[in-house]
Amino acid sequence: MAAAGLCAAAALMAETPAAALMPWPASVEVHPGTLAINAGFSVFASGGGAADARVKTAIDRLFARLARQTGLPLLPVRATSAEGAALRIVVEQGDHRGPQQLGDDERYSLEVSEAGMRLSADRPLGVVRGIETFLQLVRQNPAGAAPGFSVPFVEIHDEPRFPWRGLSLDVSRHFIPVEGIERTLDGMAAVKLNVLHFHLSDDQGIRVESKKYPRLQQYGSDGQYYTQVEVRDMVAYARDRGIRVVPEFDMPGHSTSWLIAYPSLAAGPGVMDPTKTATYHFLDGFLGEMAKLFPDLYFHIGGDEVNPRDWNKDPRIHAFMKKQRLANAAELQAYFNKRLEKTLGKYKKRMVGWDEILQPDLPKTVVVQSWRGPKSLAEAARQGHPGILSAGYYLDLMQPAAQYYAVDPLKGETATLTPEEQKRIWGGEAAMWEELATAENLDAKLWPRLAAIAERFWSPESVTDRASMYDRLGETNRWLEWLGLTQRSNLELMRKRLAGSMRTGPLDAFAEILEPVKGYERHRDGWNATTAFNRLVDAIPPESDAGRKFSDAVDQYLMAPNGVTAESLRAQMSRWIEGAAAVRPLLEANSVLVEVQPVAEAVAVLCRTGIEAVSYGTAAPPADWKPRALAAIKDASMHRAHLMIAIAPAVQKLVESVPLENQ
Amino acid sequence: MAAAGLCAAAALMAETPAAALMPWPASVEVHPGTLAINAGFSVFASGGGAADARVKTAIDRLFARLARQTGLPLLPVRATSAEGAALRIVVEQGDHRGPQQLGDDERYSLEVSEAGMRLSADRPLGVVRGIETFLQLVRQNPAGAAPGFSVPFVEIHDEPRFPWRGLSLDVSRHFIPVEGIERTLDGMAAVKLNVLHFHLSDDQGIRVESKKYPRLQQYGSDGQYYTQVEVRDMVAYARDRGIRVVPEFDMPGHSTSWLIAYPSLAAGPGVMDPTKTATYHFLDGFLGEMAKLFPDLYFHIGGDEVNPRDWNKDPRIHAFMKKQRLANAAELQAYFNKRLEKTLGKYKKRMVGWDEILQPDLPKTVVVQSWRGPKSLAEAARQGHPGILSAGYYLDLMQPAAQYYAVDPLKGETATLTPEEQKRIWGGEAAMWEELATAENLDAKLWPRLAAIAERFWSPESVTDRASMYDRLGETNRWLEWLGLTQRSNLELMRKRLAGSMRTGPLDAFAEILEPVKGYERHRDGWNATTAFNRLVDAIPPESDAGRKFSDAVDQYLMAPNGVTAESLRAQMSRWIEGAAAVRPLLEANSVLVEVQPVAEAVAVLCRTGIEAVSYGTAAPPADWKPRALAAIKDASMHRAHLMIAIAPAVQKLVESVPLENQ
Repeated sequence: MAAAGLCAAAALMAETPAAALMPWPASVEVHPGTLAINAGFSVFASGGGAADARVKTAIDRLFARLARQTGLPLLPVRATSAEGAALRIVVEQGDHRGPQQLGDDERYSLEVSEAGMRLSADRPLGVVRGIETFLQLVRQNPAGAAPGFSVPFVEIHDEPRFPWRGLSLDVSRHFIPVEGIERTLDGMAAVKLNVLHFHLSDDQGIRVESKKYPRLQQYGSDGQYYTQVEVRDMVAYARDRGIRVVPEFDMPGHSTSWLIAYPSLAAGPGVMDPTKTATYHFLDGFLGEMAKLFPDLYFHIGGDEVNPRDWNKDPRIHAFMKKQRLANAAELQAYFNKRLEKTLGKYKKRMVGWDEILQPDLPKTVVVQSWRGPKSLAEAARQGHPGILSAGYYLDLMQPAAQYYAVDPLKGETATLTPEEQKRIWGGEAAMWEELATAENLDAKLWPRLAAIAERFWSPESVTDRASMYDRLGETNRWLEWLGLTQRSNLELMRKRLAGSMRTGPLDAFAEILEPVKGYERHRDGWNATTAFNRLVDAIPPESDAGRKFSDAVDQYLMAPNGVTAESLRAQMSRWIEGAAAVRPLLEANSVLVEVQPVAEAVAVLCRTGIEAVSYGTAAPPADWKPRALAAIKDASMHRAHLMIAIAPAVQKLVESVPLENQ
Repeated sequence: MAAAGLCAAAALMAETPAAALMPWPASVEVHPGTLAINAGFSVFASGGGAADARVKTAIDRLFARLARQTGLPLLPVRATSAEGAALRIVVEQGDHRGPQQLGDDERYSLEVSEAGMRLSADRPLGVVRGIETFLQLVRQNPAGAAPGFSVPFVEIHDEPRFPWRGLSLDVSRHFIPVEGIERTLDGMAAVKLNVLHFHLSDDQGIRVESKKYPRLQQYGSDGQYYTQVEVRDMVAYARDRGIRVVPEFDMPGHSTSWLIAYPSLAAGPGVMDPTKTATYHFLDGFLGEMAKLFPDLYFHIGGDEVNPRDWNKDPRIHAFMKKQRLANAAELQAYFNKRLEKTLGKYKKRMVGWDEILQPDLPKTVVVQSWRGPKSLAEAARQGHPGILSAGYYLDLMQPAAQYYAVDPLKGETATLTPEEQKRIWGGEAAMWEELATAENLDAKLWPRLAAIAERFWSPESVTDRASMYDRLGETNRWLEWLGLTQRSNLELMRKRLAGSMRTGPLDAFAEILEPVKGYERHRDGWNATTAFNRLVDAIPPESDAGRKFSDAVDQYLMAPNGVTAESLRAQMSRWIEGAAAVRPLLEANSVLVEVQPVAEAVAVLCRTGIEAVSYGTAAPPADWKPRALAAIKDASMHRAHLMIAIAPAVQKLVESVPLENQ
């Protein structure tokens, strides 16, 4: 998007807040006027690709979703002619046979004008993408117009920036049932992601039925795995939505669950023995079976975080390394990877692995996925490998959307690559490691933040405005609920569980400025796949909207202090003090909430301190006020019950801005 | 339940508000103490019926639901011995083979004590029922106890009052997809209902695939029907939960959808021709096919509301009646019914029909379902027929739960029956006719009110306390959400749709005292199966809890006026005035909400009038105040946008209580 385009985008967003397109398209023009969506809505599809199964199912879904978004009693009516159709879909040609491929054409154009609505694409995938954009445009008419729904006049031409736009989803640490995967695929398709990287095995469990090695699921899954029928269903469900499924079976490390089932493969706890012929024989059988089950060309073998200790301490392995002239554990893993790569080649698959697999004599078709960062990614690209960035996109670290949004696969070290090398950066993947995510709160840990990352992968590089992103993210978050995503509703239920038979309102209001602690703090405190996740920290979103808005308001106030803003900040903080008082009976009555009592006290302290700071304004406080206030903030900012108070940094800014007496 | 039992119940409810059992069991004793539910929860089932498939699946569901209710990471672990189990289940013997039958044993006992938790039943159905009671007992520990969940020490012995406890669900006027039916079955099982009466055909559509007469679904369903595979799945799903599925195919009236497909069966619009051999030949084929698909012994043929006009005006039908000595249309329908009854007998089915089928020479095995009322039901019982009451239980009329709760199958005319005749009253069925219900808001139209009716059918006759019912109904309503029922969440989404990109809070707060108009008022205004149901009236519950509580508070105040209550009423009404102002920007911005603006004005008028009334208290107002106030209330009580303001009658009471000047 050119700078002019960006300005137009900003203007559009300002004028029509409901035009909450996300990812923002490559090119958007808006014209005055709208077309109504009414109960007679119909579709006519034409062109060489109109008979494609994905086009047909996408149109069926369009009707169902439009009915939900509008409440209109829509039946999936195909018009008998283009003239009689509310929406004309033209798709030039069908696709190649076989599974969806990297780089398949996703371009589309969407025009809404007095002449009607027209979605056109060269290929079926473009229709799948364009329908999502169309659905994002539907909004209720403003008062004054007829009661009902419409889409604005627009002209959109759109295509993705990167061909590989993924979510890496760990279903080993916490198993996610099929309906959760399908919901996630719905959400991914809605924001135009196109790869589900399915992390199917790890120490905690292997999650796919093997008919060849049934002990894997019998002993390595606690009964929580996908049958092969379910896998085929999920792959088909994904394909319908233009999403490739890339399986990952992590090896030779992170493999405790395999080794429980087949101990003879082990070199030590959680790591395979790469010196035994039997290991390669087993993996040949397993990969052959899985290669059939997952039709995608790419196959992920993990390869991360192998602890060299278990190899180094075994004399037999040492002898093998010496014989094979392998200097260290890394070279032994390289040897393992090369053999795996050959096996995968036999099954017509290309290998993907994490940074650690990178080594000079690896075939250049092998794709490197970087969890270590752009430097490692750039190195892979220089060596000739395609690369995918995941570092910076770890949703499980509970960072705010803006932080992920600022990470670009072609910034930092990768920006120094030649244009040729840069072409090897195929895109990126958000990652959701599930130590702390459960089937119950997965949606809330993915959404809406994942939509911001999806925009990074799809939209032009220049689309970076934080404020616009957050506005559209809020709209997108609401829109996604029509798909049945539970990021709001399940957290509400969890808070109802906490509140027992008491009203949830005070808890909801109190929790709006709380956030879970970030990074691996909870992991270090012993939370893992076997603990209960039914505390308040599990029942709130990763990011506090109210906290962010308050922080923005404080920044504005500090740039231009004035009485109106001061009063508004004061009023807001007073409400939070009242809220912290109103929630006390709840916290005092329910055993699981007791741990949150000190947080309510800390909120009150913070807000009182903030109010004092605003009251002093530009006047000087008593000499000892500021150190006392800063100490109070420091104490209130301690992590209690694994919660953080999102407004603490902004309150600190307010205090720091108060001039000292002697200034 | 004896009176002593009732007192114990009231005491239990008062002491432990979380013990929100519904339906209230036949006998409950509570003792001090609780047993913890923790992550090691396990079950051991023993006895001759432990291997029954329903017992096994019920235990699997128990684990999944307990995990949701507590947030504990529960795996479905069967203990290897009774000693090691958290919950012991003893089920004396398995059941007869074949489909569930009327009167199958549903008794169970549930004991929780220091010795552990024990659920015992003679038969599998008792286990299915008892598990629901067990799940209703789970609550969070109070503060002071360990953080977690527990069940109280109880001794419960329970059995149903009536053997036929049903919901008649109309899926013809609005089709409900399979997942909606399954959700409904989950909810029914939770409140111990045991019959899904599936109204599968009516003028608007026939909803089951016929392989013998495929034109039925091709021409009579708009593509919205259950395949036979889906029917079998739903029947199995219901059986797992102890619910029989009784199909209804309405004939000879209410049959437009059949006649579109097979016009030769018609005597006129919407009515079959009962004089043609071909009609009976067709029905024999159809009923034979459906008799196999639905295994229940009972089969409902509708038989209601036949318009005699189309028969009377046809000379050929007249000639037939003369020849057969049938004096009028009613006798012709009787002739039709007798032939149908024989056909059903051939397929080993017993016939059920609405009141109109009653006639002297009908076999006494035929069951009469009464939509007309207890008088008609009593008449059927006197004649020797089994009967089911539906009159008074029509949920689509949007009446409050208390109104349905007060209707008893053995009160009114049926109370005059002999004990022998009373035994023929098998129970009742709530009915949900779906002119105005859609897949989106069905749950909200069923729940929680259906739970109050379920209690009427299950619990002892003496359980009638309105206040206790409402307390437990609120708890039950929250509890049902763990099953995935959407009575709250979908209405929230619908209000979000109305609010567009604006905050929903003010709309939610404003709507809490609104109710949809009652009875058939909307039907008369032209709302039907083809209109959109996306207005505010469609997005609120049938009954306003806030309105009911205000009304109760007003009653208490009027019995004993005092300053504290007066102030509380005044404060409440002031908040509603503020709410009516706060929602204005929303109503003014969104085209579908514009119609609600006058309702907001009316709320403000009502509340101002109510505040005046409380302010006058026992002092006398100006002479013209009362007539003006009453006129204002009358105007504010007009139905606008198909909405009623639930507090209007209570405000009127307040005004009427103000003494006139000359008193």
